[in-house]
Amino acid sequence: MPQHVWVDGRVLPADAPAITAFDRGLLLGDGIFETLRARRGVVVELDAHLERLRESAVPLGIALPPEDAPIVAGIAAILAAEGLADDGSSGRAPGDAALRVTVTRGSFMTRGLAPSGPSAGTTIVIAAWAHDPPDPARLRDGLSLVTSSVRRDPGSPLAGVKTTSRAESVYARLEADRAGADDALILDTTGHVSEATSANVFAIRRGRLLTPPLGSGCLAGTTRAWLLEHAPIHDLTPEEDELTRADLLRADEVLLSSSVAGILPVGRLDDEAIGRDGAGPITLQLRDQREAWIDRLSRGPA
Amino acid sequence: MPQHVWVDGRVLPADAPAITAFDRGLLLGDGIFETLRARRGVVVELDAHLERLRESAVPLGIALPPEDAPIVAGIAAILAAEGLADDGSSGRAPGDAALRVTVTRGSFMTRGLAPSGPSAGTTIVIAAWAHDPPDPARLRDGLSLVTSSVRRDPGSPLAGVKTTSRAESVYARLEADRAGADDALILDTTGHVSEATSANVFAIRRGRLLTPPLGSGCLAGTTRAWLLEHAPIHDLTPEEDELTRADLLRADEVLLSSSVAGILPVGRLDDEAIGRDGAGPITLQLRDQREAWIDRLSRGPA
Repeated sequence: MPQHVWVDGRVLPADAPAITAFDRGLLLGDGIFETLRARRGVVVELDAHLERLRESAVPLGIALPPEDAPIVAGIAAILAAEGLADDGSSGRAPGDAALRVTVTRGSFMTRGLAPSGPSAGTTIVIAAWAHDPPDPARLRDGLSLVTSSVRRDPGSPLAGVKTTSRAESVYARLEADRAGADDALILDTTGHVSEATSANVFAIRRGRLLTPPLGSGCLAGTTRAWLLEHAPIHDLTPEEDELTRADLLRADEVLLSSSVAGILPVGRLDDEAIGRDGAGPITLQLRDQREAWIDRLSRGPA
Repeated sequence: MPQHVWVDGRVLPADAPAITAFDRGLLLGDGIFETLRARRGVVVELDAHLERLRESAVPLGIALPPEDAPIVAGIAAILAAEGLADDGSSGRAPGDAALRVTVTRGSFMTRGLAPSGPSAGTTIVIAAWAHDPPDPARLRDGLSLVTSSVRRDPGSPLAGVKTTSRAESVYARLEADRAGADDALILDTTGHVSEATSANVFAIRRGRLLTPPLGSGCLAGTTRAWLLEHAPIHDLTPEEDELTRADLLRADEVLLSSSVAGILPVGRLDDEAIGRDGAGPITLQLRDQREAWIDRLSRGPA
């Protein structure tokens, strides 16, 4: 568990009061975030995440620091504080870490939805967790998903924006828990597949690597982009296309992709087996490739 | 501006750090809230608000204190701390107050959407603001609304639940600000009227008082319930029915209702005048009735 947290330039004890009760992130979910992975203290695809953070800030009009430097410094400081910045030179295993960068609009003493009146500026919170590889049983059997009753609205002006207003995703995750499943599949309001609660969804069928288009309201995941780019290396034709639940059930393989957990096989959807039941072999290859790519990246230029 | 805030049983300075950076309200909008009005220290429709808070907690599985007493005590403490509990006996004007009760799932050190691992329990935050009557120009001209690009999904399992995941409502409010309007009208995904960003919407036409059904994804407002109940006294037939934007434009009068602001006339929608342009006379009568009702209530049994 984290022992520290970085808040607006200072490393504090994790359990210390750090945020005012008038923070709009707390009261209104009026914030944005990124989840990142680090290996040996090197953050994977940092620029892409910081760019997406800036893109998320635009529709809500949240003012980020003009330079990335304070956030980059905060990430380095929290990795160091948690002992997760080891480059391996100590002889111990290099620390894999999950990072979360949260930015809220800040504290406003005025009441209501309009962010008027005095504010101390945005609140920036950065936390790091030691990241363990997945349970081997998950890689053997694949994850189980249930279809959520939550739908993404692709027409929303905040579709695909990583706001901290995640109550619907929390609800979907609780639905999965109640069903004894690992995660929930979220459809869009037209009934097509959008994403999992915090991962993109892919199907592999007859040499094609299929994933819903961004128009489904899903997040533009960095691992999603990597998969679309690297698919041809594995003789897969990448394709963004509408997918239904039935498409997933008749796919050869289904996988989830996310920054921290990487590429994970899906074995079951709503208690029906996908493909040959259990993790798909192409999925596991793609996972290994991605993990090896991250490891090379973390070692820097040869 | 508030000088204090009540957090988990203690009155703190408003600008003090009060919440940990791992609070799920802050990180995920994983909380619920109520907005209430008090007059002379008497909270209007307190039981209805506490009941709705308990109803909001159910779908998210947020554990509220078994008794209302701690929250009721918190409301009394913050009203007293802010000098807003005056019953008029001091000779000064009785204080009108807006209150906000926010409850989050609490602080969890674990990462991700699933609320597993240790938590210190729910976080309860109560704040109070002095409430001024609306600008007389607003009561003369009526509010101006713009139609938001945000839509409510009536099929969402959290439709009508007052979660703190309000980024879409904040976005709609910013759309109104950009258009120089007072508030935004939010339609549901089928194109029917749902609500304003933090108020219910009513239309008056030929002796009928019309408002969207709860199935539109709107909030079950306490002032909405009061209006539906009291309409017959004013020779109005209350009716819950689907309304379109065009229905509002051809109504005799349109009004908004909310706990704190009460009943307010709408004069314009997307720059088109409603009814005779300016506040509707029946709306102003209903407003006066509601305000008089609140005043009587605040004086207690005769």
